[in-house]
Amino acid sequence: MKKLSISVCLLLSVFLTDIAIAQSKATWIWYPGDFEIWLGNKMQNRRTERGSFFPPFWRMDSHYVLMDFHKVFDLSAPEEVMLYAEGAYNVKLDSKMLPGRPQKVTIPAGKHRLNIKVYNQEKVPAIFVQGKTVISDSTWKVTYEDKEWIDATGMVSSQSGTQWLNAGSWNFDDPQSPPSGFKLNTQPQSPAHITRAPHSLTVDFGKETFGFIKLHGLKGTGPVAIYYGESLEEAQATATCETMDQLDINQPAAKDSTMPLSKAFRYVHIQYDANVQIDSVSMLYEFLPVANRGSFRCSDEELNKIWDVAAYTLHLNTREFFIDGIKRDRWIWSGDAYQSFLMNYYLFFDSPTVSRTLLALRGKDPVSSHINTIMDYTFYWFLGIYDYYLYTGDQSFIQQFYPRMQSLIDFCLQRRNKDGMLEGQAGDWVFIDWADGLSKQGEVSFEQLLFCRSLETMALCADIVKDGKGAAQYKQLATDLRAKLFDYYWDANKQGLVHSRINGKPTSYVTRYTNMFSIFFDYLNEAQKQGVKQHVLLNDSVQQITTPYMRFYELEALCAMGEQDYVLKEMKDYWGGMLKLGATSFWEKYDPKEKGAEHYAMYGRPFGRSLCHAWGASPIYLLGKYYLGVKPTSPGYQTYSITPVLGGLQWMEGAVPTPNGDITIHCSTKQIKVKAAQGKGILYFHSKTKPVCAQGTVMDKGNNAYEMQVEQGRSYEIKYVALK
Amino acid sequence: MKKLSISVCLLLSVFLTDIAIAQSKATWIWYPGDFEIWLGNKMQNRRTERGSFFPPFWRMDSHYVLMDFHKVFDLSAPEEVMLYAEGAYNVKLDSKMLPGRPQKVTIPAGKHRLNIKVYNQEKVPAIFVQGKTVISDSTWKVTYEDKEWIDATGMVSSQSGTQWLNAGSWNFDDPQSPPSGFKLNTQPQSPAHITRAPHSLTVDFGKETFGFIKLHGLKGTGPVAIYYGESLEEAQATATCETMDQLDINQPAAKDSTMPLSKAFRYVHIQYDANVQIDSVSMLYEFLPVANRGSFRCSDEELNKIWDVAAYTLHLNTREFFIDGIKRDRWIWSGDAYQSFLMNYYLFFDSPTVSRTLLALRGKDPVSSHINTIMDYTFYWFLGIYDYYLYTGDQSFIQQFYPRMQSLIDFCLQRRNKDGMLEGQAGDWVFIDWADGLSKQGEVSFEQLLFCRSLETMALCADIVKDGKGAAQYKQLATDLRAKLFDYYWDANKQGLVHSRINGKPTSYVTRYTNMFSIFFDYLNEAQKQGVKQHVLLNDSVQQITTPYMRFYELEALCAMGEQDYVLKEMKDYWGGMLKLGATSFWEKYDPKEKGAEHYAMYGRPFGRSLCHAWGASPIYLLGKYYLGVKPTSPGYQTYSITPVLGGLQWMEGAVPTPNGDITIHCSTKQIKVKAAQGKGILYFHSKTKPVCAQGTVMDKGNNAYEMQVEQGRSYEIKYVALK
Repeated sequence: MKKLSISVCLLLSVFLTDIAIAQSKATWIWYPGDFEIWLGNKMQNRRTERGSFFPPFWRMDSHYVLMDFHKVFDLSAPEEVMLYAEGAYNVKLDSKMLPGRPQKVTIPAGKHRLNIKVYNQEKVPAIFVQGKTVISDSTWKVTYEDKEWIDATGMVSSQSGTQWLNAGSWNFDDPQSPPSGFKLNTQPQSPAHITRAPHSLTVDFGKETFGFIKLHGLKGTGPVAIYYGESLEEAQATATCETMDQLDINQPAAKDSTMPLSKAFRYVHIQYDANVQIDSVSMLYEFLPVANRGSFRCSDEELNKIWDVAAYTLHLNTREFFIDGIKRDRWIWSGDAYQSFLMNYYLFFDSPTVSRTLLALRGKDPVSSHINTIMDYTFYWFLGIYDYYLYTGDQSFIQQFYPRMQSLIDFCLQRRNKDGMLEGQAGDWVFIDWADGLSKQGEVSFEQLLFCRSLETMALCADIVKDGKGAAQYKQLATDLRAKLFDYYWDANKQGLVHSRINGKPTSYVTRYTNMFSIFFDYLNEAQKQGVKQHVLLNDSVQQITTPYMRFYELEALCAMGEQDYVLKEMKDYWGGMLKLGATSFWEKYDPKEKGAEHYAMYGRPFGRSLCHAWGASPIYLLGKYYLGVKPTSPGYQTYSITPVLGGLQWMEGAVPTPNGDITIHCSTKQIKVKAAQGKGILYFHSKTKPVCAQGTVMDKGNNAYEMQVEQGRSYEIKYVALK
Repeated sequence: MKKLSISVCLLLSVFLTDIAIAQSKATWIWYPGDFEIWLGNKMQNRRTERGSFFPPFWRMDSHYVLMDFHKVFDLSAPEEVMLYAEGAYNVKLDSKMLPGRPQKVTIPAGKHRLNIKVYNQEKVPAIFVQGKTVISDSTWKVTYEDKEWIDATGMVSSQSGTQWLNAGSWNFDDPQSPPSGFKLNTQPQSPAHITRAPHSLTVDFGKETFGFIKLHGLKGTGPVAIYYGESLEEAQATATCETMDQLDINQPAAKDSTMPLSKAFRYVHIQYDANVQIDSVSMLYEFLPVANRGSFRCSDEELNKIWDVAAYTLHLNTREFFIDGIKRDRWIWSGDAYQSFLMNYYLFFDSPTVSRTLLALRGKDPVSSHINTIMDYTFYWFLGIYDYYLYTGDQSFIQQFYPRMQSLIDFCLQRRNKDGMLEGQAGDWVFIDWADGLSKQGEVSFEQLLFCRSLETMALCADIVKDGKGAAQYKQLATDLRAKLFDYYWDANKQGLVHSRINGKPTSYVTRYTNMFSIFFDYLNEAQKQGVKQHVLLNDSVQQITTPYMRFYELEALCAMGEQDYVLKEMKDYWGGMLKLGATSFWEKYDPKEKGAEHYAMYGRPFGRSLCHAWGASPIYLLGKYYLGVKPTSPGYQTYSITPVLGGLQWMEGAVPTPNGDITIHCSTKQIKVKAAQGKGILYFHSKTKPVCAQGTVMDKGNNAYEMQVEQGRSYEIKYVALK
């Protein structure tokens, strides 16, 4: 899809007169959020389990079927404009309807208003407008109720009550490729190995992958069954593998045949009738074309392998949206997506996939349930917005969707109990983590903590949209809740926040969840931090975490407290442990104590576990943020900090993407090299000796700590001697 | 569509063993309201104006795309059940998913739960289930969020937070004819007269009609234009007629060609190229098959004609829904539909068209505007429910849609000003009526009156669904508002309610609207009633009403005060006036002072006026309710009253439909004959002499007033002498 626009750009850089178009090119536009919801429905209802349709269990919303698009143009010369629409449409120029369904319109010089109104029940109403300067883009205004009535004399209403948003768009820059035709890219790939037996084939693609199986030279009459496996065991377990295709062939002449639904697998096992013949098998690899902008290399080869497999895992799960896993559920789960957002900022920095995912998750009003029905997942949605703004600086997203944020937080506020706390109500799933015996009863501290952070996010967003009253209200609510968190849950004895309150009384149960989040939310004072570190996080008698999902936050908390050496060992142990078991992508769950095929089982099914789960890819985030040490300190990397920490490595190097270019770092025990494409950064490091830098001024902050300002576009090389 | 089910019934009455199926036959089911919204979108986006697409200007909602249907069956024997679905689906028996997409399932004896989950973005998810006793009908439960998640051990959630409604259905009783295939019936009809000229045809179908024009023996090359006219003038006004078709023909062999869009017309004027040939023209009349159950005949032939033309007008406008007019807008307008509901109770008594229309009008939450953007139209929706319950007794409708009533009334309550009154806010259309110079400013009394009645409706419905708190709240709100109506607007001097308050001060302007509604809402005491009658309704200096829309209520108010003689003359004058001008259906607006083609103009366009407008058909309602004199006095005609009033006629007779049969009346100045198929009625009449009835006991109530109880299924004949 992007191919065309790139070639157009190349062309235009030659023909300078057309540069105006290159800078602001026409694109298909729609009501913001509508394409995202529509595509979310399509993707999430594509899951099958052993051939049965397996849809989500929450409400799926829909696009508005009738949409008015308009923009006012002030033209110096008349302009002929081509019009394209998905749906039945009409065109008004200065409120006067043009006859029929015009495919072009000439707009006279001067100030004129162009309206296009589109109806489409099946697909998202969308338009593409292409003139010399009159083009469709996100500066157009859209509404689902234009309220343009006409009175008995023919006079048009004022439309004074109409709410307009800016149009949504993505990268549909070709009038002949409308949004409804969206497809991921594909690419033929061959298997690594095929094992043949009478009437069966076992195919190994060499690593976890995703796509459409293609049977070459298929002919004959009779049944063909394709059993997919993320493991060889799964592909061969014809009665219990999670996904399969069953065909009934009747073709006398040999023909290549591609399966209609793409699936996740490393292995496929194919069984076919004695009257059927198959020459060979290949696949069409299906993917979203996003490039790795972030990178990481270091002196530890196992860690390099971990980073590579994590990047591949995230890439496979970055599709129409950020999904949980490619075998299952292939749905958009807010808690899972939240982690993908964070990893994405250190790998692809692909903002559209973040905003698409946030919009598909949110759906529309009224709110009738928590996102994905899970209380914590509602809050991760708010946290995702907080980070999205911090990393990308995109205010317009907040301006457009602030009302949807308000209605979702209102839903939560209305469900507080008399103490102002949230408990699971009928139909609420309090998830937290897959962990044996984890209590979800009463007022779980973890939920209040996330709720508090969500209220802080609302306060931030209220400020951005200049909702002063809202900002004050959300700030007060957050402050009150944060105070309660410590009043109600802090156990001085246990040096941590306890797990829950039941009937207004704190339990004595301590878990890692609330405590580790409170560290990187910066809710703890120094003494509390140290208490939590020693008595909870580094305390083996507190229930261990067995999902990469929560290991993400556990290790982040430890990194935030400077435990990079410890975390490095943990990463090698845990993710390295999966690699030692032959993993080619990271898993939904990994318990080093399990053996053999136990690693594949979950949800009471022998192959229920996903072996390629986005939340398994967190080393990308940890290595980028806490080893290369780059993070924004104001929205969109206008300012940022670089705090390289080797954590026991001899050297490391890599790039961290920002909205307008990368920050590259090379760091050994003796030198640090830094270059940044945008913003103003501060480099923080420690040195045994006085550092030397020819390109900048290193400031001595005492206790071996140094700081240096980093200006965009310049290369810095610091000679120093790292502290242990 | 009904043909099949009737033949099935005939068949089954022969084979008695199958009677269980006949009594509760399988039908396509969906989420209640969803098919109605979907069909509403389809119909309302079919309008064109001179070939341009002309959609509504309010928000159009959509169906839920993912739906779970279930029912628990207790079977004495195993049963094989056929399954049909519109959309991708899966089937669960006792929570266990069956493989693939089964087209049949065998349910074992005993208690079992059958779930079918359907996804359909384009059409409404619907199912049809056909076993011996296991069938799909409105006893199935449906939800758009089943919340059936599975925990890590494979255990299924409690679904305790899931809201279930009963499935919606209509008359789709054939598994091969799913709801998305809905089409109105058609029937070929020939023109009354064709006038030929070189390269043109002018076709007269003899009366207002609706359908698809068919060109016979069309051949040649070149343009063909079809201009539609409700009047001959319109069809011939090629530059200004409201609807038209433009074809570009290129067919060497003659072929019959039917236009793709149905239209309203009496005349069509066809112009075609010299290289085109057309043999003849006919039409496919398009209609909803509803039968006239109500009837009216009397000693006045003009009145009989008025009733016939009114019945035809209503029939033409009773389609997928009750629409405003067949030429335009062909939309569902709440105020227009409300009158159709009332007329329908005296003509078709077709409840499904009422509930379909109510559901399509209401759409879904959140409420972002008044219905059709018009404040009064929101209130007519509530009034429509009040009447629907009174006439049909259908409690289930209220039980299913009470939440949508609540959110709509909440929308209104939230928009009250500090005095608790409603004023038009930005984007609100305060319509009332098409009337020159009618003020919409400030707190218009008419809006408060309708708001008050809506609150009373809410109180009634709250009682039905046993929402005690809501009932008390709505009752109090209604009582308070009713008191304010008189405090704020009653002008003792003018003997009526004034039109509005501006800046908290009543204006001195009196209009008919509020006053006439307050009569049949029974808000006035006897002295006020007489005051309003003399000083407002029968006062020519108060601005005259020129739309049949508001004449409906004006004449109803007068009838409610016993002015049937006066109203009869008005009907003959006003509706008779249209007939004298050649009307074959009744108009959107009729002003006797206008001349010639002035009658066709509106909205600043020479043929803007609709000559077949549902609100023109009100004599049906007036004659049924206030002359034949039948009305329910408790829900669903469990009890009713019959108060025949000749209003100057020598005799009249007719039938008024009820949910379970008709009430027939014959009344002359000397005898009254009554028979009722259901309920308990009371016949009220006056007589100069003591009445005689062999079949019942006539009670003397004094002052020449008599009453008699009417039992269902019995015929009564009363000899009396009518008072003048």
